[in-house]
Amino acid sequence: MTKRPSLTPIIEALPSTVPFVGPEAQQRTSGRAFRARIGANESSYGPSPKVIARMEEVAKDMWMYCDPDNYDLRVALAAHLGIGKDNVVIGEGIDGLLSLAVRMFVSPGDAVVTSLGAYPTFNFHVAGVGGRLVTVPYENDRESLDGLLEAVKRENAPLVYLSNPDNPMGTWWETDELIRFMDALPETTMLILDEAYGETAPAAALPPVDVNRLNLLRMRTFSKAYGLAGIRCGYAFADEEVIANVEKIRNHYGVSRMAQIAGLEALADQDYLATVVAKVAAARDRISAIARDNGLTPIPSATNFVTIDCGRDADFAMKVMQDMLAREVFIRKPMVPVLNRCIRVSVGLDHEIDIFGEELPRALAAARGN
Amino acid sequence: MTKRPSLTPIIEALPSTVPFVGPEAQQRTSGRAFRARIGANESSYGPSPKVIARMEEVAKDMWMYCDPDNYDLRVALAAHLGIGKDNVVIGEGIDGLLSLAVRMFVSPGDAVVTSLGAYPTFNFHVAGVGGRLVTVPYENDRESLDGLLEAVKRENAPLVYLSNPDNPMGTWWETDELIRFMDALPETTMLILDEAYGETAPAAALPPVDVNRLNLLRMRTFSKAYGLAGIRCGYAFADEEVIANVEKIRNHYGVSRMAQIAGLEALADQDYLATVVAKVAAARDRISAIARDNGLTPIPSATNFVTIDCGRDADFAMKVMQDMLAREVFIRKPMVPVLNRCIRVSVGLDHEIDIFGEELPRALAAARGN
Repeated sequence: MTKRPSLTPIIEALPSTVPFVGPEAQQRTSGRAFRARIGANESSYGPSPKVIARMEEVAKDMWMYCDPDNYDLRVALAAHLGIGKDNVVIGEGIDGLLSLAVRMFVSPGDAVVTSLGAYPTFNFHVAGVGGRLVTVPYENDRESLDGLLEAVKRENAPLVYLSNPDNPMGTWWETDELIRFMDALPETTMLILDEAYGETAPAAALPPVDVNRLNLLRMRTFSKAYGLAGIRCGYAFADEEVIANVEKIRNHYGVSRMAQIAGLEALADQDYLATVVAKVAAARDRISAIARDNGLTPIPSATNFVTIDCGRDADFAMKVMQDMLAREVFIRKPMVPVLNRCIRVSVGLDHEIDIFGEELPRALAAARGN
Repeated sequence: MTKRPSLTPIIEALPSTVPFVGPEAQQRTSGRAFRARIGANESSYGPSPKVIARMEEVAKDMWMYCDPDNYDLRVALAAHLGIGKDNVVIGEGIDGLLSLAVRMFVSPGDAVVTSLGAYPTFNFHVAGVGGRLVTVPYENDRESLDGLLEAVKRENAPLVYLSNPDNPMGTWWETDELIRFMDALPETTMLILDEAYGETAPAAALPPVDVNRLNLLRMRTFSKAYGLAGIRCGYAFADEEVIANVEKIRNHYGVSRMAQIAGLEALADQDYLATVVAKVAAARDRISAIARDNGLTPIPSATNFVTIDCGRDADFAMKVMQDMLAREVFIRKPMVPVLNRCIRVSVGLDHEIDIFGEELPRALAAARGN
């Protein structure tokens, strides 16, 4: 038998997993296009027209490498947040930054605490460095701050992950409770606070920016409310020394010139962002009303999606989702107990919500075996 | 003193380094724009007009996440190379793929072999996983195949890096010699063959595609001849099992939708690529002639740059480069002995080469203290 190069023990032991199957793969399998793309928590409203115009304008400049310092965007974000440029780092979406963060704080075998059913891509990156994932069940469809804290202390975990507002449930904690949680965390445990959905959340869900808290690494993105999921641009902010350590290992040319320019333009158009946030709120209300009209229970959401309790077990919710997919409506669902009694529906354009409203009763009837 | 979360020992021990200072940073420091941007081995000719048009067309679609499978681009590249889709993986430039490759094959303390003065970003990523870099001097301005082989065997290295054609010297090996090198490598040593400049090289510099060689991982990019450095799109091809292991740790949503679409369109326009390759050859000749006219020695190049032996020591070449930078001509230079007697000039537009031709004698005179 021919020999081959050995993988590191960590990579050798890793299973082949895919954090998410994209809608494109589902379309390739079915051979049909989705009529409503309301499953990936994208922003169907798109980015600001000014961002689109700017991307069109600079397409011809893409022969130039990106600025590896991401200087202009970092300066703009720093001003926006009221912090220093060296408190900010840009990455290839929050996903890219999560990969770097686990490499910084997690040695093989270290415990990393997250909620059971929270972001699979974080778990994927933890596994990728040989971390040992410790999961804490949700409580009443919210990530359990007390449970996370208890697990951190019990496991002496160097890293804990919290998304607020939460995905996949859409729920959130408010500032007082978050501060109490952060104050109680060991100083030696880094908290990744994933605020991907921060722009659509009530102000009270976002604690004041404080880069003097040395064990807090916050992450936000242009993928959600800013409507730029396809361009890959996220950012993290923290104490300067934390950011300086990200600099030691990040791919300095990883964030494209297009992404840096688009992010800068998007940040500048806060008026447009405000219109999107209002549209998201209205669309959440419509989706929630449709759920209630069908006898289901929408869970209050601070995000750009609504998670809907289908009122029965996981099999039932799975059937509903599968039937919606067969009806060419792309939605997703949480996969772990007891969250898996739900389906998750992203806000979309009016005609997409219309389609959702038309097809949901049919899918429910099919799932009930009527 | 307040405590803070501990970094992993690897990250803690890492120095803060930057693989490359970008031209934007130099312009911010000087407060002046470069008149000729011929230092980063970009393609001043830009991408195909069809690629630009396509990027403009899809700017409005960037609210959608990228296909995490990179399906269309992988299928197209596989057809182009005559291999299977599962022999190909796309990354955020070759840089991103190098980061993954070292994570796959290098455990802390493992020896990794490369040439002294070769790609700094590879070294950066090796350091990032705690690898131990073993460097082999160039011989006659070429990477030393014999030297690399000897070092691999002496150090029992799991990974060796070779760029062909080479950066920063522009030199290359031909197929027979490369095959002999690969055949002599231990089967347990993975060879990363970085062919970033493959499109501008003579056909003889590119060994036939053979994904049955289990210890060969080849990397190419849309950043150079295809003119898309700013979009971040590179690819690697190898045995399916090697690629499957990249899939275990890559950032599945790392390559933007824009990059995937631009890469696909660029690959389809091979006629445009041929015109660029011809322009690159002509521009290399012009730069070489200017060097000779000034009493310097251009090194034969298979890339989109010409490295020029300034005929004296490193200090002299440094002065020449610094003086050119002060004259708003962005060039770079190799930094390690004995390569550091040279400056490196990327091919550019005619007017940029004109500027180079005007300013070089002045910079030489200044460096000579005339």
